[in-house]
Amino acid sequence: MNSGEFELIKKYFNHTKNTYNYSNYIELGIGDDCALLKIPKNQILAVSNDTFVADVHFLNNIKPSDLAYKALSVSLSDLAAMGADPTWVTLSITLPKLNDSWLFSFSKSLFKLLNYYNIELIGGDTTRGPLSLGFNVYGIIPKGCAIKRSGAKLNDLIYVTGNLGDSAAGLQLLQNNLKIKNAKSYRSLIKRHLRPVPRIEQGKALRSIASSAIDISDGLISDLGHILQHSSCGAYINLDNIPLSHDLTSNFEFNQILSWALSGGEDYELCFTIPEKNIHKLDTAFNDLDLPYTYIGRITHKSKGLVCFKNGKPLESYNKGFDHFK
Amino acid sequence: MNSGEFELIKKYFNHTKNTYNYSNYIELGIGDDCALLKIPKNQILAVSNDTFVADVHFLNNIKPSDLAYKALSVSLSDLAAMGADPTWVTLSITLPKLNDSWLFSFSKSLFKLLNYYNIELIGGDTTRGPLSLGFNVYGIIPKGCAIKRSGAKLNDLIYVTGNLGDSAAGLQLLQNNLKIKNAKSYRSLIKRHLRPVPRIEQGKALRSIASSAIDISDGLISDLGHILQHSSCGAYINLDNIPLSHDLTSNFEFNQILSWALSGGEDYELCFTIPEKNIHKLDTAFNDLDLPYTYIGRITHKSKGLVCFKNGKPLESYNKGFDHFK
Repeated sequence: MNSGEFELIKKYFNHTKNTYNYSNYIELGIGDDCALLKIPKNQILAVSNDTFVADVHFLNNIKPSDLAYKALSVSLSDLAAMGADPTWVTLSITLPKLNDSWLFSFSKSLFKLLNYYNIELIGGDTTRGPLSLGFNVYGIIPKGCAIKRSGAKLNDLIYVTGNLGDSAAGLQLLQNNLKIKNAKSYRSLIKRHLRPVPRIEQGKALRSIASSAIDISDGLISDLGHILQHSSCGAYINLDNIPLSHDLTSNFEFNQILSWALSGGEDYELCFTIPEKNIHKLDTAFNDLDLPYTYIGRITHKSKGLVCFKNGKPLESYNKGFDHFK
Repeated sequence: MNSGEFELIKKYFNHTKNTYNYSNYIELGIGDDCALLKIPKNQILAVSNDTFVADVHFLNNIKPSDLAYKALSVSLSDLAAMGADPTWVTLSITLPKLNDSWLFSFSKSLFKLLNYYNIELIGGDTTRGPLSLGFNVYGIIPKGCAIKRSGAKLNDLIYVTGNLGDSAAGLQLLQNNLKIKNAKSYRSLIKRHLRPVPRIEQGKALRSIASSAIDISDGLISDLGHILQHSSCGAYINLDNIPLSHDLTSNFEFNQILSWALSGGEDYELCFTIPEKNIHKLDTAFNDLDLPYTYIGRITHKSKGLVCFKNGKPLESYNKGFDHFK
């Protein structure tokens, strides 16, 4: 880190209070060559990194407060999908130039979310160049409790949290590819695109209940596909059960909605599987979490592939989601 | 991760052998939402992340093999400066397009270096956009043995490993700002710029010997300045003692060489301090490591600042190193 970077980081990113849940496990935070971390006894460390590039992962005109919120939420969503409790984060940010008001808004929004989840920023790297961000997120999970993609078993029930498709519709609205009259729905769908909620509490509640989980970043079909691939399974899903918001159903055609819900992506809801015997445990664990969760299908034998049913009849599979290199 | 990314990563980056020194501590590597890591008993985790942007941190025409080597070495250098043993790494790579031969050369060079240091690639993220890389490096250190910037004490001796200034000269040669006749020196200086060696073994040898350490990324003056700032000290350094390669001294003017050595940066040698009583321990620890190390000055009271002596007389301080935002 050079002196300019150092001052920049100090001004905007060195707000640590040392009163976060896991501050006591940080031997050294921002400012040295490395951060030094102790891992609580009987826990393992979950780590994930995500990069966000302007015009690829976000629209170039995004507000800095939305960018900070979304990029951090998306990064935390990976921890949620494993059942991890988020503890620390590092940020790499590449900026075309130093802009005080941009950094002020960005860091204010970032720390609001970090404080909400009780996560400490323990390091970072700032450089000049085309706008992009990278978050490395750290979380802890009791030994043996991590929820992997590979654990789904024959006849397990498939669920999703929340509603699907809102984010894809919100993106279309933001890009002016769509118009709707209902102003409340307009704001709500755009918010679902810009301010996804990482399902941290749901992920933690699923420890010892779910056999597998993933967060829906590329679309249900694509992400459930990863579970099936890692678990060597097939699945059927009942499209009549896919949870859809009133904002979607009251404003758009059903086929359009279904396409967003199945392959639009960026919902950051969890898709997970449970053995049938865990239904009551699931209901109990999710009872206080104030978010719908919906049974959408079942795990089948690998040879069956992924089959979508509608009105009791099989439908052709949907596209496999968004590919950043296509 | 989408399907295109997944295939890409599988083809070029999923070479893990599971026979690395710390493979047994990985509960889950590449391919899920997070990597899951166990930390060996009585060790703490050191983490660092570095971003490398084309035209800022490296010349756009750099060979992919050199880019992989340099970016990983520079990232590992942060672990070296803390005395950490490198264990795992994740890579975020942003590419303008998919190019098979580029990725082949890049990944071949990357894995050569990873294998040399016995480090496992445990995750990554590939995206489309302007060329940049980010490495997150992980290492372990026995509890209580990390070498921080903040530990230098009055009268401690200041040392550097290797020679200084070669990398800055190599950069000038690469940019055609300079010419020299000696072909061997030309190749050697360019190699010192493109292929820095992270001083991992030296860092580990300095545990319980050094009171502070830093790697020289921005230049001796700037980086020693960080030690002084974090340790609330001053220092004098004797410029006559600065270690310089024959490639520099036989081809360039002394003042030019000194400027490179003090503020050129990118040498990735270690600058460290030891209490005088540890001189013999240092000689013993470094005896087998086949790299020169040189006493260059002493820690003084904070009020003295940083003073450079030449021929026994104080000289004005040099510039504070390279600032990516200037």
